[in-house]
Amino acid sequence: MPAQQFDVLGIGNAIVDVIARTEDDFLIKHGMQKGTMALIDEARAEAIYDSMGPSTQISGGSAANTIAGVASFGARAAFVGKVKADWLGRAFTHDIRAASVAFTTPPATDGPQTARCYVLVTPDGERTMNTYLGAAQNLTPDDIDERLIAAAEIVYLEGYLWDPPQAKEAFRKAAAIAHAADRLVALTLSDAFCVDRYRDEFLNLMRTGAVDLIFANERELHSLYQTPDFDAAIKALRDDVKLGAVTRSEKGCIVVSRKSNEVVEAAPIEKLVDATGAGDLFAAGFLFGLAREADHWTAARLGALAAAEVIQHLGARPETSLKDLAQDNVLPI
Amino acid sequence: MPAQQFDVLGIGNAIVDVIARTEDDFLIKHGMQKGTMALIDEARAEAIYDSMGPSTQISGGSAANTIAGVASFGARAAFVGKVKADWLGRAFTHDIRAASVAFTTPPATDGPQTARCYVLVTPDGERTMNTYLGAAQNLTPDDIDERLIAAAEIVYLEGYLWDPPQAKEAFRKAAAIAHAADRLVALTLSDAFCVDRYRDEFLNLMRTGAVDLIFANERELHSLYQTPDFDAAIKALRDDVKLGAVTRSEKGCIVVSRKSNEVVEAAPIEKLVDATGAGDLFAAGFLFGLAREADHWTAARLGALAAAEVIQHLGARPETSLKDLAQDNVLPI
Repeated sequence: MPAQQFDVLGIGNAIVDVIARTEDDFLIKHGMQKGTMALIDEARAEAIYDSMGPSTQISGGSAANTIAGVASFGARAAFVGKVKADWLGRAFTHDIRAASVAFTTPPATDGPQTARCYVLVTPDGERTMNTYLGAAQNLTPDDIDERLIAAAEIVYLEGYLWDPPQAKEAFRKAAAIAHAADRLVALTLSDAFCVDRYRDEFLNLMRTGAVDLIFANERELHSLYQTPDFDAAIKALRDDVKLGAVTRSEKGCIVVSRKSNEVVEAAPIEKLVDATGAGDLFAAGFLFGLAREADHWTAARLGALAAAEVIQHLGARPETSLKDLAQDNVLPI
Repeated sequence: MPAQQFDVLGIGNAIVDVIARTEDDFLIKHGMQKGTMALIDEARAEAIYDSMGPSTQISGGSAANTIAGVASFGARAAFVGKVKADWLGRAFTHDIRAASVAFTTPPATDGPQTARCYVLVTPDGERTMNTYLGAAQNLTPDDIDERLIAAAEIVYLEGYLWDPPQAKEAFRKAAAIAHAADRLVALTLSDAFCVDRYRDEFLNLMRTGAVDLIFANERELHSLYQTPDFDAAIKALRDDVKLGAVTRSEKGCIVVSRKSNEVVEAAPIEKLVDATGAGDLFAAGFLFGLAREADHWTAARLGALAAAEVIQHLGARPETSLKDLAQDNVLPI
């Protein structure tokens, strides 16, 4: 087994967010379902961009946000994902490296442009996402470096990886390498519609032990088990996976393991500005806690802190040091 | 004289801001003078970008920010400036049009990339700017459409236009067209170092009556008259131009005319987040007030309100409706 070089390595779609504030009627007019992620083609991307308001561009991508969060806690973090060698690809690369994340996946030199997500933030702080996958579709098993994967304590994968055609093979390859090196494999279910697209595959990953830890929010959990009964879904989750962390927005989260269910409160906020990244940053804190061998309660508290930070500003990456934030809140890390 | 079609038309460098938070020692290490704008070449742009932290990209450009502010007050606004037909040029164009500003200057199809400004924001909220002019250098008198200029009640020009080689000719052409159509011509002095580069030209524009209204902050005014004596500088300004608006950060502003000096307070803020755009948005409110025939006090109050909005978030364009803000503050517009 190679020496442990990273606390957490994430694999996901490398995306730049194009964020605009909007009113609810814009979503209705454009047939968007509030709070979800829709995949769009380039023509729809252009149409949405043309009609949306003045925007801000900030690096995003679900797993990439999580990994930037892990690094902000002071851990050793790495990311694998595909950009193109264009302006946005350069921005994505700059931003994740500037966040102290190791990022060495070679950019595509031809094919579609770097992926972008048009994020519409409504006055209630909820975000509605429209993703043009672009170059992220070119992530293949060849981009999975065995030495790199095996050198990470935890490998973190996003469910969204099942959308690009070859990325799921990259996902499977990475999970197998990690387990061969006796590492932990974590998966976020990403989005309720994503679960709906790949329900059987995700359940199969869980039940075969290809993943050890699941992150889900309530809607994703309900979608996974196709039940409106929360307790039944939690019970099913406990049977299917070693460890689950289910987030419930302002109601906090539940950490589900074979031994127990642990309920942890959300961290207080002053004002919800932009919910983008809440789940991503919860995962960051939780993974960081696990990597540092914290108990589940502490890991979940770290997740709650990070989520609270990111929803109080525009964009899905932390703007303040999560390490300092954790220390100010007397969480041992 | 053509029919009045716009309240305010601005001409300036079309720039996208690349903004990162930083500590003061970054500025020292890179030889930057805090609170000022430095012109940089592409190699230095790359070097600064490589070493700065994770960043946010938001459309900027001094006069463009002002014009976006004018439009946010509900006025009819237009902008003239040069981008390239590349990713950032598309973003600049999208953002200013999405702010309801008429923007029809054709983009350059070759030559350098769209201009960008690397903005470093220190913990005190102060901003230090590094501008790569890129495609903005290709603004020429051919981009000045006589009908468009003559159709605006006020033509607003930025001192920064004296940096690109041919833009000052575009500036002179626009000012002459405006005066031939009996319009008001306004100039912002932009930056103390910019004043230092073009002091004689700026004084000449004022003394020959090529400009009617001057915007300056304290540092620019001291630089213009090369005196540390504020009162002496104010007196000199009154002799040189019909109307002057001098901003003094939290101390408010002074409106200087042949008739009187009027002191107007700054608007209260909760927290200074990013000073970028304070002067630009003051100008937006003041110009809007003048276009709507408000008195100088009211125009300055509108400027103070707009400046207070923009310094409480990242980026130099308003995030809330300035029209609503003015109405909430019972300012007649």
